[in-house]
Amino acid sequence: MNSIPRDNSNDYALGIIEKRQKHIKEFSGTNLEHIKQYSINPETTRNNIENFIGVAQVPLGIAGPLNFIGEDATGEILIPLATTEGSLIASYNRGMKILNLSGGVKTTVVASRMQRAPVFGFEDTREARKFEQWITDNFKKIKRICDSTTKIGKLEFIEKYVAGRFVYLRLNFYTGDAAGQNMVTRATEAGCKWIQSKYKNLDGYYLESNFATDKKSSNVNILSTRGKRVSAECTFPKEILKEHLRITPYNIAHHYNIAGHAAFISGATSNGLQSANGITALFIATGQDVANVAESSAMIFHCEINSNDDLYINITIPSLIVGSYGGGTGLPTQNECLKIMDCVGTGKVTRLAEIVAGTVLAGEISLAAAISSNEWVGAHERFGRNR
Amino acid sequence: MNSIPRDNSNDYALGIIEKRQKHIKEFSGTNLEHIKQYSINPETTRNNIENFIGVAQVPLGIAGPLNFIGEDATGEILIPLATTEGSLIASYNRGMKILNLSGGVKTTVVASRMQRAPVFGFEDTREARKFEQWITDNFKKIKRICDSTTKIGKLEFIEKYVAGRFVYLRLNFYTGDAAGQNMVTRATEAGCKWIQSKYKNLDGYYLESNFATDKKSSNVNILSTRGKRVSAECTFPKEILKEHLRITPYNIAHHYNIAGHAAFISGATSNGLQSANGITALFIATGQDVANVAESSAMIFHCEINSNDDLYINITIPSLIVGSYGGGTGLPTQNECLKIMDCVGTGKVTRLAEIVAGTVLAGEISLAAAISSNEWVGAHERFGRNR
Amino acid sequence: MNSIPRDNSNDYALGIIEKRQKHIKEFSGTNLEHIKQYSINPETTRNNIENFIGVAQVPLGIAGPLNFIGEDATGEILIPLATTEGSLIASYNRGMKILNLSGGVKTTVVASRMQRAPVFGFEDTREARKFEQWITDNFKKIKRICDSTTKIGKLEFIEKYVAGRFVYLRLNFYTGDAAGQNMVTRATEAGCKWIQSKYKNLDGYYLESNFATDKKSSNVNILSTRGKRVSAECTFPKEILKEHLRITPYNIAHHYNIAGHAAFISGATSNGLQSANGITALFIATGQDVANVAESSAMIFHCEINSNDDLYINITIPSLIVGSYGGGTGLPTQNECLKIMDCVGTGKVTRLAEIVAGTVLAGEISLAAAISSNEWVGAHERFGRNR
Amino acid sequence: MNSIPRDNSNDYALGIIEKRQKHIKEFSGTNLEHIKQYSINPETTRNNIENFIGVAQVPLGIAGPLNFIGEDATGEILIPLATTEGSLIASYNRGMKILNLSGGVKTTVVASRMQRAPVFGFEDTREARKFEQWITDNFKKIKRICDSTTKIGKLEFIEKYVAGRFVYLRLNFYTGDAAGQNMVTRATEAGCKWIQSKYKNLDGYYLESNFATDKKSSNVNILSTRGKRVSAECTFPKEILKEHLRITPYNIAHHYNIAGHAAFISGATSNGLQSANGITALFIATGQDVANVAESSAMIFHCEINSNDDLYINITIPSLIVGSYGGGTGLPTQNECLKIMDCVGTGKVTRLAEIVAGTVLAGEISLAAAISSNEWVGAHERFGRNR
Repeated sequence: MNSIPRDNSNDYALGIIEKRQKHIKEFSGTNLEHIKQYSINPETTRNNIENFIGVAQVPLGIAGPLNFIGEDATGEILIPLATTEGSLIASYNRGMKILNLSGGVKTTVVASRMQRAPVFGFEDTREARKFEQWITDNFKKIKRICDSTTKIGKLEFIEKYVAGRFVYLRLNFYTGDAAGQNMVTRATEAGCKWIQSKYKNLDGYYLESNFATDKKSSNVNILSTRGKRVSAECTFPKEILKEHLRITPYNIAHHYNIAGHAAFISGATSNGLQSANGITALFIATGQDVANVAESSAMIFHCEINSNDDLYINITIPSLIVGSYGGGTGLPTQNECLKIMDCVGTGKVTRLAEIVAGTVLAGEISLAAAISSNEWVGAHERFGRNR
Repeated sequence: MNSIPRDNSNDYALGIIEKRQKHIKEFSGTNLEHIKQYSINPETTRNNIENFIGVAQVPLGIAGPLNFIGEDATGEILIPLATTEGSLIASYNRGMKILNLSGGVKTTVVASRMQRAPVFGFEDTREARKFEQWITDNFKKIKRICDSTTKIGKLEFIEKYVAGRFVYLRLNFYTGDAAGQNMVTRATEAGCKWIQSKYKNLDGYYLESNFATDKKSSNVNILSTRGKRVSAECTFPKEILKEHLRITPYNIAHHYNIAGHAAFISGATSNGLQSANGITALFIATGQDVANVAESSAMIFHCEINSNDDLYINITIPSLIVGSYGGGTGLPTQNECLKIMDCVGTGKVTRLAEIVAGTVLAGEISLAAAISSNEWVGAHERFGRNR
Repeated sequence: MNSIPRDNSNDYALGIIEKRQKHIKEFSGTNLEHIKQYSINPETTRNNIENFIGVAQVPLGIAGPLNFIGEDATGEILIPLATTEGSLIASYNRGMKILNLSGGVKTTVVASRMQRAPVFGFEDTREARKFEQWITDNFKKIKRICDSTTKIGKLEFIEKYVAGRFVYLRLNFYTGDAAGQNMVTRATEAGCKWIQSKYKNLDGYYLESNFATDKKSSNVNILSTRGKRVSAECTFPKEILKEHLRITPYNIAHHYNIAGHAAFISGATSNGLQSANGITALFIATGQDVANVAESSAMIFHCEINSNDDLYINITIPSLIVGSYGGGTGLPTQNECLKIMDCVGTGKVTRLAEIVAGTVLAGEISLAAAISSNEWVGAHERFGRNR
Repeated sequence: MNSIPRDNSNDYALGIIEKRQKHIKEFSGTNLEHIKQYSINPETTRNNIENFIGVAQVPLGIAGPLNFIGEDATGEILIPLATTEGSLIASYNRGMKILNLSGGVKTTVVASRMQRAPVFGFEDTREARKFEQWITDNFKKIKRICDSTTKIGKLEFIEKYVAGRFVYLRLNFYTGDAAGQNMVTRATEAGCKWIQSKYKNLDGYYLESNFATDKKSSNVNILSTRGKRVSAECTFPKEILKEHLRITPYNIAHHYNIAGHAAFISGATSNGLQSANGITALFIATGQDVANVAESSAMIFHCEINSNDDLYINITIPSLIVGSYGGGTGLPTQNECLKIMDCVGTGKVTRLAEIVAGTVLAGEISLAAAISSNEWVGAHERFGRNR
């Protein structure tokens, strides 16, 4: 079997790409009619892909504008979404309309950090405990080593978990406008090598123990934040809900109460409805690492009826991994999508995180209304639990 | 503020698309230079997106061929991956090479089903219990109603969970070659309406209780399967590992042992390493609902050293949500990617699921080798825990 | 060092017990002044303990009577509780008073089963899948073998989970009035031996895979029930809450809403408050296997405000492991405690489960009132979220 | 209906106790023949129980001595266990023998803390974030207030979790030799009142949010420790395992590998076997708060085969809640049990925690051997996965 054509001198040149397309044709009989049509310069994908053969043309639609009353996201913002799921944009758009009518969405980034989680082994637990203390005592030195590997990244604190004869560390970094996984890997690598050179009685270490839970959802990240911890909230006047969604605040609160048990019993990573839909569509559109939907889809949904009988909803995404810089953000269509939202480059990542959160809340109110608008209403009047 | 231009008569015509692009330009100052360049006919996206403005051009690369010894996936298959994460394809490609050298990857689909999870309320728990029994007694009738809404879907069994005064049902359907979320929603809707019409003493119901945990990871789906439950396995000869990855079976097993604790303690949805990466890249390439990465990224990684001192690895993805039909699979570049793998259309979904699983295993051996190839080796000879 | 004195001919005779007490005195210098004072005949502990040296005198108090409107538990029942935690009985007693004033507690056992979970290994996943089907096909035969080992136990269904090259089974048994762990172990052992004798291509098996999660809390048991799934519910009139607990229904519901997030984020096995307290005190008093508090403490707490503005609370214990027969239920003081509640012997286990559930609800309303009675009230009037 | 007799002047006097016993007799027809026989002075139970009616006589047996090579637990220690489960002591005793033959059990307390978890509400997330910072800035002041309420307790650090418009705090205290729940409640109450008096814009607070997960198992406590984080470890020579348990190190490691998946898939709070058994028996014997078995039963079991082909096992209990002072530790039989282990009073709690951990490891090796000693051995030689 022939292997995929490569060209060490320029692996993104037209010639080699065509050879690969031909190779695929010969191998599988598939003519790449559309895949090979793209406007971007393959050279721009050098740090984003290997064995380039063309592009996936993922449909892009536009939602909004959504009115933000965030800290970095303010005013009306149009939101590009890349998806192949029919009605997704319609659903989010409907939610945005309701948010706008309710005064806009308030968004807040509460925390921001990225982890790498090496594990160190010892002869026994007592030695592990000693090491845990040593890490505490030597934090500043470790920080100096880690920070020296990056212009932007800064080690902020180290979580330590002793189990068995092992110490699992989670090094938490500030990563500026980048999602930062590569940055923290390099920094942690340097830190680990320094530790290894200084600390006797080490049985060995791995740069990653799985405790970062990169591209997995996990309780530790719901608790401790990976990426951004960001909230979006809004008080929906009961009249708006009635007129535009044909629901009452009680309808939503009732479903939320019952659905919360389902999340708890099933061991789900979210007690909300469809955060992954909006996040994924924004991630594809803007060149994020889409695999991070695994952890970014975790969510804490909260609602309550306030003293005016209006509906307050607050969603918190505890592990939203986004960057306005690095990764796929510089690719042509992706960059244009970021530009539409004024999220290109430095100083923009918080704005982007807020936009994601606001979008997610739009999807929640929209779907929650759809689910709770009908059957229960008529029925429970029989039992009189409606208010 | 002007809203996004719409055209009820033909919302996918060039004119209306250009109006939207112009609207974006005016609103945000962003010129859609690349987004508006695409080869696909917007009309083909009618069921996939609203407010179409163009496409995200996501770089596509090719990996493999990977040698499959599956049931529906057999022989060498080239695998297209859409990603913006540099080195991802290189990593998977390296794993595929190792799998090929080890005799190929054995893949097996163990189960296949899709759920919708309505919840029914009652006056008290005793009435809930009565209803649970009634559902058991009336399964055939409910099945007839549900199945009548779809040519392909078939209700196979109903899980029942009583909590409080509520009965949470999970209706499990066979969905043919489609992922099937829409199919099961329609079917469940019909079933619920029938139940409501027949069952007295109902306090109401919701079509979805969150117990399907759609687009969330959950324990119930790791246990009970949502989408496909699919495994990929291989016995890696120690010589292959030594020569090509500079590791021993023990290196991998040692890391796996330690990383397993991290997954357990952190409450992670996978004890493996990077399944989300390969799954996401295949999902974008082939027009899957990428938001399902949330549940599809859960994984059970198993490894052991056999009597020849070779390394056996088996990965099980308990909730892989894929379709070879429906969703975005018919879109031009997405369909071409499916064609490359001979996964277009009916009778192909098992093949596709097997290909995803095989790809995931390639990524696991590759990253596991990278993590375990270095530091621990030298170190633990001091403590003599190496073999 | 001398080992603990044993006497093969009669290990529960006074002489050997005194030798052990003397041994302890010599070994540790501790005079067993109170431990050696007991009214029970050591001979009666033959199936309950080894190396008998005396008894722990655990204080017993009495709570109630609590008015039950259950199925097997009806009317007023006094409830003995063994504890060393001051104010526990006072707290439960207060809750019982409120329940009585509110018309009594409605209790319902929804399901009852006990598991043993063997695991079987195979050459690969495909063989595992074949075995899974074989188990389905041979259920009746397996049931005949299992049921033949016990007069009471009956195999009801088998859950099957394929992961890797393994099939994890959970054999679910009816166990009459016994908690039944020993009964199902014997039955499962016979079943496994029969399977081993009949099924070729087995790589081996273990009688227990940890999937029963005996004496651990787990999601699978919250979902699927281990022991009894039992609910207790009551509608508390707002006037009763106001007069006797100085709270409104809203106070409880507000705390429940906020505390629910804590349970979800922290990954807790209960969204309630103190179920373990009442369960443990009843378990010690009545000779239950107290280690089962691990799984029995899981709980689903539900509350809502009804159309009269009264407070409805329903607690569901998904894995309550109790027996009215076997274990320590026949020991003298334990049997007397069961007698106080008319729970001795056959046909009484459902009554006992209902009593536990009712007691738990008493503890929940009592503690929920204590927590929510004060600070928030004054404060949130400032923000007007009170109703 | 007559209520339970009370006597405000002396509720633990013989007269009132007899009245209660008579009341029970009249109410339920049950004669308390054994419950009313006890050697302890009821007056000593004043802080441990209300409505005293007598004692539960729980059988006590003795295990060991177990040879400790801990920090506070050293040398041979006899271990009293209170249980009604036949063969429990025999099983633990067998494990202790194996531990002794293997050189004893090494025990280490890694961390020690107790939490109370108030929650504070705000107008929105932004105000919540501001409060989070304020808590960091005012830690010393809060500590001064909290610490002033107790001679022993010391606030060590505060965990902060923002979700929605709420800030969940976990105040972590040093509690000396007491388990400390009451101590930290009082201290936290004072801290909360001070915060309320100083911090404007508070929407209210609850003293407990459920985030302490008191008497529930939880991921946050497995991660962050509630009570003691304590390990026990031993390297078991292969010859000892062969001769005394008829197993090889591989047998145990093989079962551990397979059982680990079951713990992960089922969402269990322990990947070990029976820690709750030993913990419960020790808790009842020594006057601990037995309801804490809910969280104390969580465990991380680790094993590996070392370079001599011997078996290393390490168990870590992340949330072991014990005290050598306070609670039921001063009651007569309970105190005698503590004395047997030289664990009475101040400066002894670490010793007690180590003894519990060592006991747990004894139970693990014993049951692991029993499970893995038989069926798989013969079988897997067919497939050659044995070593």
